[in-house]
Amino acid sequence: MNIEGLILDIDGVISRGRKPIEKALEGYRLIKELGIKTVFVSNNSTRSRRIMFERFEQFGLDVGEDELIIATHATAVHISRENGESRVFTTGEDGLKEELLNLGHEIVDYREAEYLVVGSNRGINFDIFTRALRLALNDEIRYVAVNPDRVFPAEDGPIPGTGLIIGALYWMTGRQPDVVVGKPSRIIIDQAIEKLGVRREKVAIVGDQIDIDIMAGKNAGIKSILVMSGVTDEENYEEKVKETGVEPDYIFRDLNELAQSLRSEK
Amino acid sequence: MNIEGLILDIDGVISRGRKPIEKALEGYRLIKELGIKTVFVSNNSTRSRRIMFERFEQFGLDVGEDELIIATHATAVHISRENGESRVFTTGEDGLKEELLNLGHEIVDYREAEYLVVGSNRGINFDIFTRALRLALNDEIRYVAVNPDRVFPAEDGPIPGTGLIIGALYWMTGRQPDVVVGKPSRIIIDQAIEKLGVRREKVAIVGDQIDIDIMAGKNAGIKSILVMSGVTDEENYEEKVKETGVEPDYIFRDLNELAQSLRSEK
Repeated sequence: MNIEGLILDIDGVISRGRKPIEKALEGYRLIKELGIKTVFVSNNSTRSRRIMFERFEQFGLDVGEDELIIATHATAVHISRENGESRVFTTGEDGLKEELLNLGHEIVDYREAEYLVVGSNRGINFDIFTRALRLALNDEIRYVAVNPDRVFPAEDGPIPGTGLIIGALYWMTGRQPDVVVGKPSRIIIDQAIEKLGVRREKVAIVGDQIDIDIMAGKNAGIKSILVMSGVTDEENYEEKVKETGVEPDYIFRDLNELAQSLRSEK
Repeated sequence: MNIEGLILDIDGVISRGRKPIEKALEGYRLIKELGIKTVFVSNNSTRSRRIMFERFEQFGLDVGEDELIIATHATAVHISRENGESRVFTTGEDGLKEELLNLGHEIVDYREAEYLVVGSNRGINFDIFTRALRLALNDEIRYVAVNPDRVFPAEDGPIPGTGLIIGALYWMTGRQPDVVVGKPSRIIIDQAIEKLGVRREKVAIVGDQIDIDIMAGKNAGIKSILVMSGVTDEENYEEKVKETGVEPDYIFRDLNELAQSLRSEK
């Protein structure tokens, strides 16, 4: 496979919800032993990196500062690169605000904003929607979505993703985000490749979702590896490939099987 | 014009927000003197008819029980006709619930529902969205929207209409309502024509919005009359006609000018 760097999805790859996938933890350790660089990439739009590092620690994984990109953080980075420190109105939660503030952006009310940043919010209400609507109606405001996720599979059933807000704004104004940061966008992937410090041809993305992870790989022009330890299984694989029109370059049962294969190459 | 019955929009025709248009009140009284039957039709998805009758009383207008159709009420009527007394989960406010209960429907949680009824709600929250999402994902649930209004022009700026919820659900599930009751749907117009008891050829709809009122007239196959006392004016008229592809049969400055013209025909 000729791989020196891996971009790893978290949910469905290393864990399911809050529970680690034991085999995957083994695989992760082996990948590190092989000297392959890794960076975790999460589309989460409500949490800060701090919370995610805590979770990795609970899993017993040693994940360094440079080995995690989360869409909240990547959004803050992207805005800095586009416009420097900016005045932001966000629909999002405290985790997103924390990341924006960390990079020197200012969280302001909608009348003062240069940016509308849409992230999911379990405390969403009519007032937040009204402010976001007024910004979306203003073409001079730059509109950035943390991720494009439509529905999230929670334990007791599906719950709305960031798409709740993106869809509402689209229907009301005809406007979609100017920029989407999270997968399948290449923006977050390009940030991950930078962090890896590995040439693009030697990087692969590993994930469990064809429309998100594998599509992100295609969008960024890197190799893609599907693991069957999450939402994609043998039953729905063909359907997903047909729906999306993309196929992974490699398929493995889980991260451990991938690690074994990488070891046999060395 | 050969008109015996008029379907009258409220906002932009008889009043602006809570303020009556004095000329229009005069016109309304003249229309009644001429023996022309009238019914007010409102797309409002949060109020019950009771609240609207109170407002007409404040305007000094005598509007009878059979002279007002509001989308909340029309939704309850439509469900009764489709399915009899039904178990309904609604995203809507108390005004909508009141109308549903008045016709014998039961307001239930989403797991017990036969119908998903989407109406605007200033108290909308993540939990209501989650329940509505789960129903929209279930093809056996009949999905009815009270109106399709995307944005509502409030005094201090635009605020979300029912389209907030319709758009969010559409983006998340790919599903649009099975039935839309309010204008420009012909469902509410057909109920209004029934109330008038006048032959369809002799009925006209009067409104200030081309995409809603005039379109409703076209959809229902009746005459349409635009009044320039609301959102449409000489500046935006051509653009709206182009956008929608429909034109009113007649145009008047306001309801009084229409009334004068109807008198001159007699």
